[in-house]
Amino acid sequence: MIYDLLLAFATALIVGKLFEELVLRLNLPPVIGDLIAGLILGASFLSIFPVNDTIESVAWLGVIILLFYAGLETRYREFMRNLGIYGIITLGEALSAFIIGYIIGILFGYEPLSAFFMGAVLEATSISVTVKTLLDIGKLATPEGYAILGVAVLDDLAALITIIVGKNLIARGAVSVANIIEIFFVALAFWLLTVILIHRISNTILRNAMKLHVSEGAVSIILGVFMLVGFITKYIGLSPLIAAYAVGLALSEARGIGRIAEKIRPIALTLSTLYFVAVTASLDIKTVLKPELIPFYIIFVLGAFAGKLMGAGLTSYLIGFPRISALRIATGLFPRAEFCIIAAYIGYSNNLFGAEVYLAAVLVVLITNLFTPLVVKIVFTRGPEITHIKIRGLRR
Amino acid sequence: MIYDLLLAFATALIVGKLFEELVLRLNLPPVIGDLIAGLILGASFLSIFPVNDTIESVAWLGVIILLFYAGLETRYREFMRNLGIYGIITLGEALSAFIIGYIIGILFGYEPLSAFFMGAVLEATSISVTVKTLLDIGKLATPEGYAILGVAVLDDLAALITIIVGKNLIARGAVSVANIIEIFFVALAFWLLTVILIHRISNTILRNAMKLHVSEGAVSIILGVFMLVGFITKYIGLSPLIAAYAVGLALSEARGIGRIAEKIRPIALTLSTLYFVAVTASLDIKTVLKPELIPFYIIFVLGAFAGKLMGAGLTSYLIGFPRISALRIATGLFPRAEFCIIAAYIGYSNNLFGAEVYLAAVLVVLITNLFTPLVVKIVFTRGPEITHIKIRGLRR
Repeated sequence: MIYDLLLAFATALIVGKLFEELVLRLNLPPVIGDLIAGLILGASFLSIFPVNDTIESVAWLGVIILLFYAGLETRYREFMRNLGIYGIITLGEALSAFIIGYIIGILFGYEPLSAFFMGAVLEATSISVTVKTLLDIGKLATPEGYAILGVAVLDDLAALITIIVGKNLIARGAVSVANIIEIFFVALAFWLLTVILIHRISNTILRNAMKLHVSEGAVSIILGVFMLVGFITKYIGLSPLIAAYAVGLALSEARGIGRIAEKIRPIALTLSTLYFVAVTASLDIKTVLKPELIPFYIIFVLGAFAGKLMGAGLTSYLIGFPRISALRIATGLFPRAEFCIIAAYIGYSNNLFGAEVYLAAVLVVLITNLFTPLVVKIVFTRGPEITHIKIRGLRR
Repeated sequence: MIYDLLLAFATALIVGKLFEELVLRLNLPPVIGDLIAGLILGASFLSIFPVNDTIESVAWLGVIILLFYAGLETRYREFMRNLGIYGIITLGEALSAFIIGYIIGILFGYEPLSAFFMGAVLEATSISVTVKTLLDIGKLATPEGYAILGVAVLDDLAALITIIVGKNLIARGAVSVANIIEIFFVALAFWLLTVILIHRISNTILRNAMKLHVSEGAVSIILGVFMLVGFITKYIGLSPLIAAYAVGLALSEARGIGRIAEKIRPIALTLSTLYFVAVTASLDIKTVLKPELIPFYIIFVLGAFAGKLMGAGLTSYLIGFPRISALRIATGLFPRAEFCIIAAYIGYSNNLFGAEVYLAAVLVVLITNLFTPLVVKIVFTRGPEITHIKIRGLRR
């Protein structure tokens, strides 16, 4: 029904963006504004936000386009360079955060598949708040600042692959180590292949697309190509999310891509606002505001900190960072945002858990982003200033 | 299903835009490229284009955004100035074209409601081909050229209201003169009210939207406002199309709207490509390629010329244009494009007629656009050059 779609867009765009603005002025990531708007407009409170299959499909397409745009905004060469030493830290922090989430799930009696998605919820980092804080205190251009930036870029891929593996496990109906390893390598291989192949022909695609005289021809062709690769993932049993990020990254340094990314940004940011408002609107948080769930919420939020602290801290320390630097890197990786919500909603909409895990994810996003600036300021300003670190393979 | 949506977008955007490019180089309107792409990809030929409710809803939203964008690109003051003398010509040419289509429908045995939509198909003008031709031969800055431009701007509203009245008649199930008059005035009143009210606060809306710091905040708010007004039409039983064009026109001269329109254009032009490809793909033209239908096709296409020739020619002549000028104005208004297809598809998808009227509409678009440049060149270069015309109320 077209009226429902119009109402969903109208309320998501107006109310969502106004709350985004509000939280942005509080130095929080805009997605928190969408979550608040979803809580207010949706089943939890006003119940005026419509939910139907079309709106869900369009919202989901919005996330796919958002990932494509995120890929476009990453730099291919930088990404590939980071794969070395920062790749090791990423592996450590991602695995550790994932395992903590998984263990919490099992401890609270969830099925392994549900626990897998709780691991995925705790995995993904989103460092915009850290970057802002480090800029404020003039500590971004430090070895620890560079490490945080490097790891965060790779962490998107780690989070993505965790979600893809999880979605695939849902289709197969069970968790087994053999399955996880198989899907992990299929996803990684597809991703690498897509990135390298499309990167090779990226300038050719762009050059030809920009030859079109028809209005918005180039942006249409680029969107069409990414969606075509997204469609192809159907035949290898992967989610189109992985294709979106891969094609975006592969095109990220093609000549002329800047102006096209400019045109894709409004599409990505309006549709993804619809997504985050819509998914939050679809569940009634009142049903999971129960005293008996408080221990779960507290432990889950603490787990969000513990996972990164242990994983990133330990790995950084082991590969040669001083103890204070390892601590700084770990605290910088605390904040979660979009991916955390996406993972929680996939689990929820596949009935792997109830709204309580979604609410826990919202709390993780909120609290990690509120708390990180304070901790980052403390750990970066106390203790010795590290100006140079000698680790083999470390750049800058 | 997300894969269907990705496939629909991928093929529509890639194949659609490539054919748009092809027809553009032949000096034809791009929409013809979408129609060809739809024929090739859809049920008529390859049958690879998916059709489902979500794709139809998104495509329909695309048309609504296209109308909004068309409104943004019109100039409010110019539109209002044109309402005088050019309004009379528009009324004449629109009514005449509509009546010819209606009569052809009745003569070929269609129900009055079906015939109504056949009138709507023949009504809407789209003068891009005329403008290009007049520019080529240096005759755009003539009294006849200005009249064509002025009438074409108003004709969008006439076509829109015809479609809205038709959609409303579908809901009521029957055609009656009282109903037509009632809906016509409700639609016109809503349209005028929306345009005037939103125009009054357009600078306030823009100024506040542009204060937002959040990325793509202004464009989101503007899209949200237009979609909200579109949603409101539900309660007065009108189509959101009318709100889209009204809000677009009302905002068209607000300070800063240019940069926002720039950002909306890619959204409007990718989604409307999806629409024109999708609707053409959804029907199998092979079933209506029958020899016994040829007289209908010929008469319908001839009717497309006859309606404008009689209506625009006679009205222009009667209000004081010389006979040659009246002829020139009428021939300039021959071409049809987007609205013609939209009206035909609404009729088809509501089972008012079969694919034969849709094919007839495609033929009208194709033939009027191929034929007009030749006729326009002849009538504008033969006969006396008109440099000045004295008609009360005529501007320029």
